[in-house]
Amino acid sequence: MHDDLKLFTELAEKLIALETNHPVANPIDSQALYTTLDLTLNETPILDDELKHSLIKIIEHTPKTASKFFFNQLFGGRQGKATLGDLLSVMLNNSMYTYKVAGPQVGIEKTILKTICKMIGYSSASDGTFAPGGSMSNYMAMLMARDKYDPESNRKGITKPLIAYTSETSHYSISKNASFIGLGREHVRYIKANSKGEMDTEALEQQIKTDLDKGLLPFFVNATAGTTVMGAFDNVESISKITKQYDLWLHLDGAYCGSVIFSNKYKHLVKGIEHTDSFSLNAHKMLGTPLSCSILVVQDKSHLYRSFSNDADYLYQTDEDDFNPGKTSLQCGRRNDALKFWTLWKSIGTQGLEALVDKQFQLAAQARAYIKQHPDYTLYSFEHSISVCFNYKDIAAETLCTELYKHSKLMVGYGSFGGHTFVRMVTINSVLDSQDIINFFETIETFYKNRHTKNT
Amino acid sequence: MHDDLKLFTELAEKLIALETNHPVANPIDSQALYTTLDLTLNETPILDDELKHSLIKIIEHTPKTASKFFFNQLFGGRQGKATLGDLLSVMLNNSMYTYKVAGPQVGIEKTILKTICKMIGYSSASDGTFAPGGSMSNYMAMLMARDKYDPESNRKGITKPLIAYTSETSHYSISKNASFIGLGREHVRYIKANSKGEMDTEALEQQIKTDLDKGLLPFFVNATAGTTVMGAFDNVESISKITKQYDLWLHLDGAYCGSVIFSNKYKHLVKGIEHTDSFSLNAHKMLGTPLSCSILVVQDKSHLYRSFSNDADYLYQTDEDDFNPGKTSLQCGRRNDALKFWTLWKSIGTQGLEALVDKQFQLAAQARAYIKQHPDYTLYSFEHSISVCFNYKDIAAETLCTELYKHSKLMVGYGSFGGHTFVRMVTINSVLDSQDIINFFETIETFYKNRHTKNT
Repeated sequence: MHDDLKLFTELAEKLIALETNHPVANPIDSQALYTTLDLTLNETPILDDELKHSLIKIIEHTPKTASKFFFNQLFGGRQGKATLGDLLSVMLNNSMYTYKVAGPQVGIEKTILKTICKMIGYSSASDGTFAPGGSMSNYMAMLMARDKYDPESNRKGITKPLIAYTSETSHYSISKNASFIGLGREHVRYIKANSKGEMDTEALEQQIKTDLDKGLLPFFVNATAGTTVMGAFDNVESISKITKQYDLWLHLDGAYCGSVIFSNKYKHLVKGIEHTDSFSLNAHKMLGTPLSCSILVVQDKSHLYRSFSNDADYLYQTDEDDFNPGKTSLQCGRRNDALKFWTLWKSIGTQGLEALVDKQFQLAAQARAYIKQHPDYTLYSFEHSISVCFNYKDIAAETLCTELYKHSKLMVGYGSFGGHTFVRMVTINSVLDSQDIINFFETIETFYKNRHTKNT
Repeated sequence: MHDDLKLFTELAEKLIALETNHPVANPIDSQALYTTLDLTLNETPILDDELKHSLIKIIEHTPKTASKFFFNQLFGGRQGKATLGDLLSVMLNNSMYTYKVAGPQVGIEKTILKTICKMIGYSSASDGTFAPGGSMSNYMAMLMARDKYDPESNRKGITKPLIAYTSETSHYSISKNASFIGLGREHVRYIKANSKGEMDTEALEQQIKTDLDKGLLPFFVNATAGTTVMGAFDNVESISKITKQYDLWLHLDGAYCGSVIFSNKYKHLVKGIEHTDSFSLNAHKMLGTPLSCSILVVQDKSHLYRSFSNDADYLYQTDEDDFNPGKTSLQCGRRNDALKFWTLWKSIGTQGLEALVDKQFQLAAQARAYIKQHPDYTLYSFEHSISVCFNYKDIAAETLCTELYKHSKLMVGYGSFGGHTFVRMVTINSVLDSQDIINFFETIETFYKNRHTKNT
């Protein structure tokens, strides 16, 4: 293992250098991948030196998500202390089902969950778990709601005419999960959004009434803190009044921007969160931990036990339920996703997490200001969003994103809302500073300045 | 990041030394955990030196799953090259949904999947995905079967009287998954097992006939390669004749021992695998990669698309479907679990994987032989199993396991089958050699020799 650790350090240093010197890897056309790189798996072993060279070539061609030119997805950058924690998880290799096998790692996970529950004003009956991604956090929430409002469903299958609600701008996992839990996609109502992408609360109530009139059983509302394209925040407080009135489960999908709970300046964006039944956030998004670190907390932990516990005597052989987190998880064997977040949080404190969040809003504000003052850009984003959506000149967003990527200039994606398609640049990498934002725009301008001279 | 990498190396070396010098960490009673270790998360940051000492204490008290005294679960040990690959995944931090963001890592994943499909004789229409654990692989298989035999279910919820079949000795995830997909636990039939823990194939057919007579719709049979307690292999070939005859989906849950496909000597244990509709294996079990590395392959990839694809224009912006694995995965954002297995396989070759598998059967045979020749032991295991189940003297299995753990002697668990409860020692750590197996038994004997003098 010593030699492998040494090789790891060498390759990691190589990667870090590449992130600066070649921040956007030359993309290989998918058709040419297998002829460009030797990815074959063969009968016989290879020499360590061959393996090393093979890994170096792969690293060279792998997209650099921690570079200053990566704005393509809802994650990016690297928090050193979080990475340290995750590297240790790989070495320790505990499975998070039992206290016997995971020991203090269970306490680490529980401390994160309990601290978040307390921060958002959940009751003492609250608890949570780590899910394999934000989609799966939403899945677990919808499943717990199903089992609460149709208690026979886990034994008999769904027996009641359940209806779920989410906004038309919410994440695609809501519809996928409705299929997964046996509800069926047709039993989800997509509530229209306002001009900023926030759920229209009145339309929600109207739809609930309509469904009740039809004899259907509304049971679950998904609100979003940070919609996928616009980064909009649904009004949790207004929605929670409706879910209380009609006795529905309220889940807040904060995969993208739920980490605003760590910021005194921005936590007002999820005002009313203490009234939700469940809440999820991805620390691998705003907080920059390695993938994945998805947290789900629940106001009343009995729902976790009801939906996810199972008797398995061969597994749970010591300690009480509360310290055997396999009883409340989706999976059985489960990777340790907690240590990376704990290491980061312990190291920089809640103050440090707050600074990461605030920085992202500050960078987004700077980007919006840049766009507004520049006549060649059109802005589609609003205040309080770290998704900065824009178009440049009359270049189609898809064209711009693809060309900049194919020419290794930068990585950014596009999205659509309100009848417009635009570039979506996300200021989620807290390691960046003002100059990096200016560089982003100047990269676009320089690229199209040269190209336009040639092509038009 | 350089300092963090340096600190990681230091802590990793510390861990490796502890694995030898203190192979079984002193367990902390769960009630005393928070007073023994400072796991608190606070408002303010701490100094790097404090963090380091805090992490060292945590590492000291965390169970050492790579030590030579860890026999507690269906994983253990450490394959250096696999660990190297997983450490690189943490640094690279690609999300495996699109080719644009994961690049060659997609090719690495696909190469593993395609190579396995070919090895087990699947057709050219086959493909697969990586799931977050073996339970979730089983989940995906059952869901695809649901959507095949009740094609309206993903839109409307389950509309047909579906019935699933698995043996009474299969993994608990089958029942949990029946609840998860909206089938309901009552719609699973637990087929009795023979004296070795293998599904009784005649009983399976009888039950299918009974259900058909009742107007129910049998749709899914789960067979197991390596049952959780006994490590038994269901007879895939016999079962597949029944599933062909009655047109049912046959899934082979090889989470524990599916890796026998890599061994010419032991692949006969899954004879008939080419007739299955889906097959899963956990490389983090027999092949010693870090958690988790769960692979699911499917005879006809259209089922993956049917059940797991979703339109998400903001995400899939370049390259064809086949190179955007987010269209066939359970999750949206997804950690790279492929590179660790690729690095190991590339390095040691299929021959090397075969040697890992063969070694485990050889160690198990040695352990059984030891038990048989020693009058103080009772053996409950059979040939062709790496679960070595036994009792020692008249000491209750639970007592033995708990005492050895509390006294930091070794970590092993217990299980039940056929009316007996016994110690289940698993020879899944290929790094071990004959002497380590002898040490295991001698540790027990020495421990109880001294204790018996005192206590009896």
